[in-house]
Amino acid sequence: MSTVSKVSVATKRLLLGRPFRSDKLGHTLLPKRIALPVFASDAMSSVAYAPQEIFLVLSVAGITALTFTPWVAIAVAVVLAVVVASYRQNVHAYPSGGGDYEVATVNLGPNAGLTVGSALLVDYVLTVAVSVTSAAENIGSAVPFVNEHKVWFCVGAIVILAAVNLRGIKESGAVLAIPTYAFIVGVLGMLIWGFTEIFVLGEEIRSETADFGIVAEQDNLTGLALAFLVARSFSSGCAALTGVEAISNGVPAFRKPKSRNAATTLLMLGGFSITLLLGIVLLAQEIGAKYVMDPAKDLVGAPEGYQQKAMIAQLAHAVFDSFPAGFFFVATVTALILLLAANTAFNGFPVLGSVLAQDRYLPRQLHTRGDRLAFSNGILFLAVAAIIFVVAFGAQVTALIQLYIVGVFVSFTLSQTGMVRHWTRLLRTETDPSARRRMVQSRVVNSIGLVMTATVLVVVLITKFTAGAWIAVLAMVSIFVLMKLIHHHYASVQRELDRAETDDEGVLPSRTHSIVLVSSLHMASKRALRYARATRPDVLEAITVNVDDRDTRKLVSEWEASDITVPLKVIASPYREITRPVIDYVRRVRRESPRDVVTVFIPEYVVGHWWEQILHNQSALRLKGRLLFEPGVMVTSVPWQLTSSDRRKETKRYWAPGETRRALGESERTP
Amino acid sequence: MSTVSKVSVATKRLLLGRPFRSDKLGHTLLPKRIALPVFASDAMSSVAYAPQEIFLVLSVAGITALTFTPWVAIAVAVVLAVVVASYRQNVHAYPSGGGDYEVATVNLGPNAGLTVGSALLVDYVLTVAVSVTSAAENIGSAVPFVNEHKVWFCVGAIVILAAVNLRGIKESGAVLAIPTYAFIVGVLGMLIWGFTEIFVLGEEIRSETADFGIVAEQDNLTGLALAFLVARSFSSGCAALTGVEAISNGVPAFRKPKSRNAATTLLMLGGFSITLLLGIVLLAQEIGAKYVMDPAKDLVGAPEGYQQKAMIAQLAHAVFDSFPAGFFFVATVTALILLLAANTAFNGFPVLGSVLAQDRYLPRQLHTRGDRLAFSNGILFLAVAAIIFVVAFGAQVTALIQLYIVGVFVSFTLSQTGMVRHWTRLLRTETDPSARRRMVQSRVVNSIGLVMTATVLVVVLITKFTAGAWIAVLAMVSIFVLMKLIHHHYASVQRELDRAETDDEGVLPSRTHSIVLVSSLHMASKRALRYARATRPDVLEAITVNVDDRDTRKLVSEWEASDITVPLKVIASPYREITRPVIDYVRRVRRESPRDVVTVFIPEYVVGHWWEQILHNQSALRLKGRLLFEPGVMVTSVPWQLTSSDRRKETKRYWAPGETRRALGESERTP
Repeated sequence: MSTVSKVSVATKRLLLGRPFRSDKLGHTLLPKRIALPVFASDAMSSVAYAPQEIFLVLSVAGITALTFTPWVAIAVAVVLAVVVASYRQNVHAYPSGGGDYEVATVNLGPNAGLTVGSALLVDYVLTVAVSVTSAAENIGSAVPFVNEHKVWFCVGAIVILAAVNLRGIKESGAVLAIPTYAFIVGVLGMLIWGFTEIFVLGEEIRSETADFGIVAEQDNLTGLALAFLVARSFSSGCAALTGVEAISNGVPAFRKPKSRNAATTLLMLGGFSITLLLGIVLLAQEIGAKYVMDPAKDLVGAPEGYQQKAMIAQLAHAVFDSFPAGFFFVATVTALILLLAANTAFNGFPVLGSVLAQDRYLPRQLHTRGDRLAFSNGILFLAVAAIIFVVAFGAQVTALIQLYIVGVFVSFTLSQTGMVRHWTRLLRTETDPSARRRMVQSRVVNSIGLVMTATVLVVVLITKFTAGAWIAVLAMVSIFVLMKLIHHHYASVQRELDRAETDDEGVLPSRTHSIVLVSSLHMASKRALRYARATRPDVLEAITVNVDDRDTRKLVSEWEASDITVPLKVIASPYREITRPVIDYVRRVRRESPRDVVTVFIPEYVVGHWWEQILHNQSALRLKGRLLFEPGVMVTSVPWQLTSSDRRKETKRYWAPGETRRALGESERTP
Repeated sequence: MSTVSKVSVATKRLLLGRPFRSDKLGHTLLPKRIALPVFASDAMSSVAYAPQEIFLVLSVAGITALTFTPWVAIAVAVVLAVVVASYRQNVHAYPSGGGDYEVATVNLGPNAGLTVGSALLVDYVLTVAVSVTSAAENIGSAVPFVNEHKVWFCVGAIVILAAVNLRGIKESGAVLAIPTYAFIVGVLGMLIWGFTEIFVLGEEIRSETADFGIVAEQDNLTGLALAFLVARSFSSGCAALTGVEAISNGVPAFRKPKSRNAATTLLMLGGFSITLLLGIVLLAQEIGAKYVMDPAKDLVGAPEGYQQKAMIAQLAHAVFDSFPAGFFFVATVTALILLLAANTAFNGFPVLGSVLAQDRYLPRQLHTRGDRLAFSNGILFLAVAAIIFVVAFGAQVTALIQLYIVGVFVSFTLSQTGMVRHWTRLLRTETDPSARRRMVQSRVVNSIGLVMTATVLVVVLITKFTAGAWIAVLAMVSIFVLMKLIHHHYASVQRELDRAETDDEGVLPSRTHSIVLVSSLHMASKRALRYARATRPDVLEAITVNVDDRDTRKLVSEWEASDITVPLKVIASPYREITRPVIDYVRRVRRESPRDVVTVFIPEYVVGHWWEQILHNQSALRLKGRLLFEPGVMVTSVPWQLTSSDRRKETKRYWAPGETRRALGESERTP
């Protein structure tokens, strides 16, 4: 609000409408302890599937290759630490919550921004697909029925998430906090308990897969092939990084000092993620857990019909061997945080759409936040796309992961490049030595981040491209091109309007010619006539189209008998149509006096049910649509509210998804 | 036109709009030789499937029961003759072309009319299903591939018919005439050639099925059971009567003297139909042709995989044994006339819908003949319903026939009842003895018709109800109830309007308050401002909703810099929505001065492609829709035509289906 008020003070002629409901309706800014779970569920949940992917890829080379897992996990943790450090610079430099899209657009130009936008849109879809699939796998580890109907479970979950978000929910930080903290507590507890048993109590814990052998698909790998496999395993493990950028989008929602609090929260997120990731991998390695692509084929010694558990479930099963409640708790909270992560995408997707719409890359109406329909379209699109991916890949986490990480690292890399540019630009003008020092430091951090993320992106592209990443790249390119075309369309409309600017003389129309369309002499028509007269046109006439002789004759004689002084013209319609005769008549009027502006008044019934709408106004609607194509013609609807319309009069406030995260009411993109 | 001119002469104040294109665009009235094929294709085509159904039902009782076939055929022919005679009275009494619906409504009241309407709607659907299925069977008799994919062929044919009718075709009597006359020539030629060979040349012609035995499902039938079977056979044979009423709908399309020409054409139709029907049954009996439900099970001695031919195809195959071109000609013209009959339904269905809409039993917009969309909806509904029937019954003519005849005879019976009433009513006032004598004669004819058709209806209901007729009855009842509900809705709206009549004082609003909605200062907004000023409102202001601070500030400073004198109000929108803030503002204006009428001017882009429509005006559209719910508010669209809109400017004349049949340009329902 404040910016607009300032403007209105500066410009004296401006009348400022009383701000309706400028209060924030109870939206409070988030303390760190709530902000962490609100923004971290996506990043944290990826710990649920990243470790097992490291194991899965390496197991291709047989059981000995699994010795690499701790090293791969450490490499992933290092990248994670660097990315967290980099994003701490982002939240300081861009506290507006624009995120990677803004950083790339401002520093690298619109095409880079659009690339990030496309990557993020694809990512949101894959976040839903991967998270829900992984949730199904974790629940399936405890409930075999879910495992046997995984695709149906995933589709059902996506439909429910979409339905909840379509309805509009008022989120509360507390509700979001519980599953995230429960997950942290559950997994950390499991790790501590497990390591305590092994190293303190000296008990031997064995995973149920510990005694199985692995059929190596590729034996005796040469150095280069092995390196490639380790690189692929590392690429898959980098799935743990997805969602880290979420906090940088949410800075305005933090309590003051916003940037510092956001940076601290990022650090906490990084700490938890690295701890959980390393802990899971090390414990799994310790107890001999295994995770393979196809358990029936790849495992030696597994019993007939063995159902492979998710890695976290395997650990929980082994650690809480004598305490089943612990196993079920870990499985439940893991599934919960994964579903919460999917829900995050349902919140973020329409918000990103809104930002892209603001820059004219998507249809403009997506920009208006409060507009339920705009959000609905986004949610539906996301749900359908995610369902397509889930079904196409048979709800296989491993298959979907191949597609996932490309988009994440495209946006990481471009964002870091943008940040390096950002600091270089600031350094050009900054003279204060201490500020310069801080900037140089930040630039070093972001440069390391850039080198690291770019390297990972290249590794991911090389190791994953044929395995499915090409699909993600293709989707990104398609969305990029589509948004370009939309932008181009808006720009060409703008050019057309600019051209018209010079053509149009801006003269007032000489006279107004009002035409009231009547079909019978009911109250709706009479009101239209009265309103039309109230606008005091130079010419006022009523016209009726003779679709049915009997009706027309009745109307004419009633008109005669009434005290209406407006002349009524009957228009012939040999083919019993309405639109064409009216258009022809209006054209004739325009031809006879081209400088007049013609206003066509159409009486309309307003009804409350969709099926009533089918029974009324259809001809009027179509006529209206066609009349708009005639230059110099205005179309005025004069509504007549039928009683059934009352039920639609009151509109409830719609709780758009993601409001908690975006600190609604704050200005979001102060340039 | 003439009626309206008369009215306008009588009422001096009326200005009659110059009738645009009142010419008939080359629509000529039909001579009898063209009228016969135009209206008779439906009735004549039923000869293609009625005879084989007589054989099929009787074959249930074994080969000996087939001796009844000539007698059943004669009974059907008698009913056909009586019905033709009855309808000759109809066309004299009701030359307006209203058909059975009008006769029943005028003489028996709206419920009887509505029953006929429901029956006819169901009939149209079944006409399409039965005709297309029978066409597939006939083509399949010559081309085995079609026989093997009958359902697909039928669905494809219905889709093509729908597409052709959706596009709108200008029919010509000549084109319609060729297949009908070709069918008459083909089948008559076949009959004459066949009987000549047998009785004149003394050759022996044997059907390919002549040597097969029939497995009797029910052996040694008792008298009553046999009578029931014969009655069922007769019911099925009565399918030959479908379509006879078509001429009574088309009287206005005939050359003068219309009624007499129509009556003569009816006679010709009856003559041909009876000749063909009896000829086919007698020849089939003579050469030992057989037609059974399931050839693999019911036929004895048939070779493995024997494909049963349609009855006409069997005759043609036997008669033109040494002249294959003759066989293919008969099969082709039979299929052609059947497809033509299906096409007739595509013409008739929307026309009947239009008549029902005029009486407020269906949505009003269906009434406007020239309205492409109204026709499209009818055509799509018909096509989808017919496809459902065809698929559900596996494209089996026999199964579909069970449903078919109920509707036909419901409308026959009610129409004849109406005619009897009609003459009785006229006789009450008529004094001229010769006129009275003619009326009494007509009443006798219609009474015989009534007794006959009512008897057949009862027979059909008894013999067919459980075999499928219940589905048709259920569909009729559902449609009847639906139309009643629609009528009830329109009536209650009318009552609401009548009540409002007494409440509303009819006073002119005291002042006009115009609000122009602007989002940026482009040409569309400027034009809206100019037009709004041209209507000289008492208050004129511009408002903008602050969805985005940056945009709003840009607009305000541009407004400042321009020479616009209209004040601009900025409305706060904390939730970044458009509709609610505007509605709230308008309500406040209304509250402050309740006697003002508020006009909201909305600038709109007009575009030429549907995808452009997605990119523009969506918020405006939704706002418009919501504003209409506010009393005392008018919504005016001020269009700005973008260049792409040019492509939609010219609308071509749409050739509504069935125009040839309805003598368009004539008044159709002069009471």
